Amino acid sequence: MTLLIKARSVKQVAEFVQARVLGDEAVQLTGLSSVESAVPGDLVFVDDEKNLCLALESQASAVIAGDFAAGKTNSKPLLLAKQPRLAFARAAQLLCSAPERKRGIHPSASVHPSTQLADGVTIEDHVVIGEDAHIGEDTRIGAGSVIGAKVRIGRNCDVYPNVTVYPGVRLGDRVIVHAGAVLGSDGFGYVRDQATGRYEKFPQIGRLEIEDDVEIGANTTIDRGAWDVTRIGRGTKIDNLVHIGHNCQIGEGVVIAAQTGLSGSVTIEKNVVLGGQVGIGEHARIEEGVMLGGQGGVLPNKVLRGKGIAFWGTPAKPVREYLKGLAALARLARKE
Amino acid sequence: MTLLIKARSVKQVAEFVQARVLGDEAVQLTGLSSVESAVPGDLVFVDDEKNLCLALESQASAVIAGDFAAGKTNSKPLLLAKQPRLAFARAAQLLCSAPERKRGIHPSASVHPSTQLADGVTIEDHVVIGEDAHIGEDTRIGAGSVIGAKVRIGRNCDVYPNVTVYPGVRLGDRVIVHAGAVLGSDGFGYVRDQATGRYEKFPQIGRLEIEDDVEIGANTTIDRGAWDVTRIGRGTKIDNLVHIGHNCQIGEGVVIAAQTGLSGSVTIEKNVVLGGQVGIGEHARIEEGVMLGGQGGVLPNKVLRGKGIAFWGTPAKPVREYLKGLAALARLARKE
Amino acid sequence: MTLLIKARSVKQVAEFVQARVLGDEAVQLTGLSSVESAVPGDLVFVDDEKNLCLALESQASAVIAGDFAAGKTNSKPLLLAKQPRLAFARAAQLLCSAPERKRGIHPSASVHPSTQLADGVTIEDHVVIGEDAHIGEDTRIGAGSVIGAKVRIGRNCDVYPNVTVYPGVRLGDRVIVHAGAVLGSDGFGYVRDQATGRYEKFPQIGRLEIEDDVEIGANTTIDRGAWDVTRIGRGTKIDNLVHIGHNCQIGEGVVIAAQTGLSGSVTIEKNVVLGGQVGIGEHARIEEGVMLGGQGGVLPNKVLRGKGIAFWGTPAKPVREYLKGLAALARLARKE
Repeated sequence: MTLLIKARSVKQVAEFVQARVLGDEAVQLTGLSSVESAVPGDLVFVDDEKNLCLALESQASAVIAGDFAAGKTNSKPLLLAKQPRLAFARAAQLLCSAPERKRGIHPSASVHPSTQLADGVTIEDHVVIGEDAHIGEDTRIGAGSVIGAKVRIGRNCDVYPNVTVYPGVRLGDRVIVHAGAVLGSDGFGYVRDQATGRYEKFPQIGRLEIEDDVEIGANTTIDRGAWDVTRIGRGTKIDNLVHIGHNCQIGEGVVIAAQTGLSGSVTIEKNVVLGGQVGIGEHARIEEGVMLGGQGGVLPNKVLRGKGIAFWGTPAKPVREYLKGLAALARLARKE
Repeated sequence: MTLLIKARSVKQVAEFVQARVLGDEAVQLTGLSSVESAVPGDLVFVDDEKNLCLALESQASAVIAGDFAAGKTNSKPLLLAKQPRLAFARAAQLLCSAPERKRGIHPSASVHPSTQLADGVTIEDHVVIGEDAHIGEDTRIGAGSVIGAKVRIGRNCDVYPNVTVYPGVRLGDRVIVHAGAVLGSDGFGYVRDQATGRYEKFPQIGRLEIEDDVEIGANTTIDRGAWDVTRIGRGTKIDNLVHIGHNCQIGEGVVIAAQTGLSGSVTIEKNVVLGGQVGIGEHARIEEGVMLGGQGGVLPNKVLRGKGIAFWGTPAKPVREYLKGLAALARLARKE
Repeated sequence: MTLLIKARSVKQVAEFVQARVLGDEAVQLTGLSSVESAVPGDLVFVDDEKNLCLALESQASAVIAGDFAAGKTNSKPLLLAKQPRLAFARAAQLLCSAPERKRGIHPSASVHPSTQLADGVTIEDHVVIGEDAHIGEDTRIGAGSVIGAKVRIGRNCDVYPNVTVYPGVRLGDRVIVHAGAVLGSDGFGYVRDQATGRYEKFPQIGRLEIEDDVEIGANTTIDRGAWDVTRIGRGTKIDNLVHIGHNCQIGEGVVIAAQTGLSGSVTIEKNVVLGGQVGIGEHARIEEGVMLGGQGGVLPNKVLRGKGIAFWGTPAKPVREYLKGLAALARLARKE
């Protein structure tokens, strides 16, 4: 999004993010940036004491910092917050505002007369919405997106351009879907006829449910269930070009980085973090709080377990064990 | 697809899938499901004797099973089939029917006057079709798809929304193309000018031919030939987010799972199965019937050979050999 | 592109590509092909002496070759060039011409009245262009593409169908963007609120700048900066389904093969070559001229260094070292 900046005083920002101010509350803030790129008017943040000095010497007009900055002499206003990075993210919400949307239905959109559009929706140019769909309050459907029959999208969602949502898919509230994503496509399931050797399509007639506060990256694809449901839990964040196969069950607060792929019927429990380009075989289960490093691979039917434990490699092992293997191999190679 | 269910009797289903009925042929079936999720009216299947009991105790109204169920006391109608999973897939075709399409050309579509549209085509909203294209009988072009000049698409194809087909590409009959796929894009070929160090585009003027009964996943990309042809053989099934480079020759009945990538000029012979996230270097050849596990990698110009032999790892080796390497490494790591 | 062939004489082609002719300059050329597929009228090339004989015996009407062919008896006209492959690529530019575009704005396109369109632009069917955008001379925007507000696209660019360009993105001149690509989507950045455990969006308000002569593959995604800029250097070539995260800095003349993924804030210096399915962790730096083989992986914050040095594996090592490890492992496995 190209965002517009509304000037705010340090006081206004501090109140919004619940920070304590040291210094001049009247200073006006007109932007946000990294410490390195700051210009006068910018708000910056530091969450590590050793970077505080750099921030104070920067061109920035104010600094969000942790309690570690409380006793320091400050050459510019400080906003002290328990979680400086989080306070900064929230300050951004206050300072930046998306350009005002032109609400309503663009005349070039094709909206089936049976579709229910709640108040405040934005249906952009060349959107297509099938019959008996339902679009919630203040939700935006970006230009060129195609929303199938009987789709239900909640309120305050942001569907970017050229997204395709297959019939019957359900999205909760405040869901963000980036451009080019495909939601609810057929799973990859065939039966081979032993007599002819040809593959026949196995039924892919299930559903896809995406809960509240999920964000889905550009050109990501999520398949519907074969006959049951594929589910993406509340607050889960999915990066670009991710593939999620049919019947996957993704818990709440899961993070999935770019180009990761889940085969069919994978279970990812809550608070799991998957790095980029991870691959997970069918029916595998990644239990609560596991972290799996980039390019890691999990075999079909395997279970990874351990809150806060990091796994890596293919087949994935606890990082320490994996690194020991790498080190042993390196020594062996040197010896020969 | 959201599908509508037409109620059928056990007798009707059994005749359609050529199964032998044990029990009450008059029972009405109104749905399909897994054994775990079955509700009354559902048809389920078991292809392993040890799951039969569970199926018979489920809420399902009838069970498709193999001959192993012939002598069992059955509390509900049994449909005995040689290939229960296949019979179930076919029963789904009988029980489920796609919602009736509104055939014809949506007024918002841009169809070049020189395009030939056969009887029964469905051209949805905002579709664009270039000059001298040909769309076969009963084929559907989904909303927002762009079909280039001189493209030829066969009969009974299903092109989902927001697909792009570059000029000159040919699709056979009964081809399914999921949303967001790109067919016939330029291959990745450049020549570096030794004098200036700059890359110049190598000609990408070949063709792409996709044979009958191929299915292509969402957001998959297949490049045209540089000057010859990229070919996808009959009955081949390709999952989401797959990349197929220029000049690849894919045989019949090949299965390619999600996020796999083939460089230029790769040959995949018939009945090969490639797992997800596999990468194959240019000019490599995977011979008939080879299976290559997820994340496996094949170097340029290599040949993998062996009907029914499974390979894994990078560089790919027969699974047994690969696993021996992993085990040796694990032992070595433990020793140190 | 389906291209039209304009017949040219050997003399005309030789002048255009600055080659020296041995033989009949008047021979007419009506196509290009590989030596294997040549038909009469075709131009072919050989850049290796050992293939010359085959080319001379082929059906082709003329052969581009290196100086090695100077003394040979030639049964057909030879065009001698210092860089035969480059000469062939340029000959293709002369012989092939894209079908004449129908310039202007298709009536179904939605172009904001404030948008500036330079002379000779082609805005195809159902394109959407937001306010205050600028489209340069002779640039084409393909059908169904959505160009956000304040986007600036240079001259002679070719944007294929169904591309999405987020607001504020800038493209230089002669940039090619293949179908389905997404440029300028939000980066993948969140802050976890320690109190609630929920992820909040970190500001993604930066820019994306793509310099002259870049080519971007089908369904590739490139994120905007978090608050600074993501930059793709001049002449860089990016294949299909590549992911480039926020704040990445890609130098000039870089080549990135299909399905490679760069996390946030990665630096790729000029003339780097990345194979397919490579994964690079955040804040890593790949220095000038490094080559990294397919499926290679680089850990966060790592630096790869060495002009012309090839790396491979995860974590990536110089190829020789990596191969030594593989060989040692193979020996170990055999011993046990």
